[in-house]
Amino acid sequence: MALKIAQRGTVPPFIVMDVMRAAAEREAAGGATLHLEVGQPSTGLPRRAAEAVQALLASGQPLGYTVALGLPELRSRIAGHYARTHGVDVPAERVVATMGSSAAFVLAFLSAFEVGDRVGVTQPGYPAYRHILKALGITPVPVPVGPATRFQPTVEVLEGLGETAATLDGLIVTSPSNPTGTVMPADELRRVAAWCDAHKVRLVSDEIYHGITYGMDAETVAGFAPDAIIINSFSKYFCMTGWRLGWLVLPEDMVRPVECLAQNLFISPPTLSQHAGIAVFDCEDELQANVARYARNREVLLQGLPGAGFDRLAPADGAFYLYADVAHLTNDSLGFCRRMLAETGVAATPGVDFDAVEGDRFVRFSFAGATEDMEKAVAALTAWRR
Amino acid sequence: MALKIAQRGTVPPFIVMDVMRAAAEREAAGGATLHLEVGQPSTGLPRRAAEAVQALLASGQPLGYTVALGLPELRSRIAGHYARTHGVDVPAERVVATMGSSAAFVLAFLSAFEVGDRVGVTQPGYPAYRHILKALGITPVPVPVGPATRFQPTVEVLEGLGETAATLDGLIVTSPSNPTGTVMPADELRRVAAWCDAHKVRLVSDEIYHGITYGMDAETVAGFAPDAIIINSFSKYFCMTGWRLGWLVLPEDMVRPVECLAQNLFISPPTLSQHAGIAVFDCEDELQANVARYARNREVLLQGLPGAGFDRLAPADGAFYLYADVAHLTNDSLGFCRRMLAETGVAATPGVDFDAVEGDRFVRFSFAGATEDMEKAVAALTAWRR
Repeated sequence: MALKIAQRGTVPPFIVMDVMRAAAEREAAGGATLHLEVGQPSTGLPRRAAEAVQALLASGQPLGYTVALGLPELRSRIAGHYARTHGVDVPAERVVATMGSSAAFVLAFLSAFEVGDRVGVTQPGYPAYRHILKALGITPVPVPVGPATRFQPTVEVLEGLGETAATLDGLIVTSPSNPTGTVMPADELRRVAAWCDAHKVRLVSDEIYHGITYGMDAETVAGFAPDAIIINSFSKYFCMTGWRLGWLVLPEDMVRPVECLAQNLFISPPTLSQHAGIAVFDCEDELQANVARYARNREVLLQGLPGAGFDRLAPADGAFYLYADVAHLTNDSLGFCRRMLAETGVAATPGVDFDAVEGDRFVRFSFAGATEDMEKAVAALTAWRR
Repeated sequence: MALKIAQRGTVPPFIVMDVMRAAAEREAAGGATLHLEVGQPSTGLPRRAAEAVQALLASGQPLGYTVALGLPELRSRIAGHYARTHGVDVPAERVVATMGSSAAFVLAFLSAFEVGDRVGVTQPGYPAYRHILKALGITPVPVPVGPATRFQPTVEVLEGLGETAATLDGLIVTSPSNPTGTVMPADELRRVAAWCDAHKVRLVSDEIYHGITYGMDAETVAGFAPDAIIINSFSKYFCMTGWRLGWLVLPEDMVRPVECLAQNLFISPPTLSQHAGIAVFDCEDELQANVARYARNREVLLQGLPGAGFDRLAPADGAFYLYADVAHLTNDSLGFCRRMLAETGVAATPGVDFDAVEGDRFVRFSFAGATEDMEKAVAALTAWRR
């Protein structure tokens, strides 16, 4: 007789996988496919970093475990990154390298929240937040946000939760956001951090899209929220998705508990990836060229999509996403995306994974790919909607 | 005011880190140090696999995320490994690639056990088992084992737990074992699996040291326990510690829940490491040469250690460990190891991490290093104990 499967580990699948599979099948069958569904850079590890990694491999040096918190040089380069890009002093001792932001979330949540704790997550928002929380016995509390607040939480939004606000043990903010690309204005981020401080709510700031903004800078909470947990990754700005390397900036008193937990749960992040992470800080020119490409892509979509009927777009201040309200076109974004893929070859992500309530009327376009693909997508969608 | 740190995430540090730090400091200060404390191969990724990885890097192909369960070719090579080495048919669909065995444990435990469930772990045993279980809200239940059963559980040992046995939801077995190196005889492993089956206890078989045995083969439960979870890794036999790649063989009905959980918790294992994992299956000759080195090292220690007073050794059937009962020498193995390091340069691991009860009278010697180091260690210890 089969044994039980634990309920607490049962999380919903990503519905988007359905569209991604369909896109992959279409492509395998030779159908032209434009990948505006994938949330990762189409470019890989910058050239100089790749060369550094190749040299290390050629040296034949065995790549054993590192210490659990990551190579000291990597932690120090990450700390230096805060000084250089934000003018904020972050001691390397508070930086922890992790196996992607994924492991960072697991370590942060296990260290900050007990079973039964309640953590606010924006709706729409990155679905893995609620699923990881749930798997670890923490209750995700939806914080509905919309165009009135750039799809970001504000103190008014939090106060608007009423009695629910008083039950929160934590709050996750993501600026720039996935799926909307919107940035929290600096003063609003500070007000939300102060609100968390006053209400003894642990602020978790996911800064994974930092470095990818278009005119409006994204501020780090490192400068003013010493009790906040910062999560970041080499996957987006640094183009290192498959290398599985991320980091945490922790409040001082959390470093030791997270170190013990990391030793046991993960041992250490991938060693070669850590060396790549050290080297990628010397590739600013290539990385900025990628951001310039995203900026061109964004322009192409902002210019072209309205003519194809996608004219209700969230202000895409950062990341590489345009979140389109398609309520005038459909009330079933999943079906709409399937049809759009089949009839135009443009793959995009239905909002349903990001927002269980309103997601049926939203579609996310990713512009992390080639500019040529964005132009082709606009042309195909314009022809389709005629 | 500082916010709370979650109790459930608070796990004890590894005490061995203390010895490892002292060994590193001694070495940095120029003192000759023999590393018999580290549980990883001193050799790196085999040459042909390293070449394959370098060629992939040189191609400039971006290394993005893979599907959550791992590259199909990797899963199929792992499945083929069971046919070749054990003559057991494991469908690739039941194989899941993970970020080291570490992530495999997190996925397995979250999917198989609820908060409050109870899982048996041998004492002595790998300390991360109890710490991961505890962090995930599962109660580790000590299963004391000793020389009478080769430091392995038997049906009699389990029945000897009395009423506690009836409270178990799971049982972890490790053969060859860390820290003892002992192997469960095939018939005993089958009996334990049958006992688990009869008692609705989920068997978790950690087979991470498979491939490293000395005359006595280690059997996989894949051949006879369809409800068992198998954990394995590329870190030991395949010499890929720092690459952070492991795998699970799952009961059929656990594959989909683990897939959804892995998508959310870990996205995918490191991509380059997955390619290295595919290539390393073609490096059997190099890998076997490493095992032959371990066998020589083991002989050197088995011949030499008794003359240095370490004559009560667990039968080291596999892995690269000798677990020595040092009750006649000390009742404080941590202090003993510190003194041994300071006076002889030989670093070894006190038993206290592996066994909170009896660990004070055990020391683990690892022979994963160079044969020359084993010879030097025997000479140094023999001179010391004279």
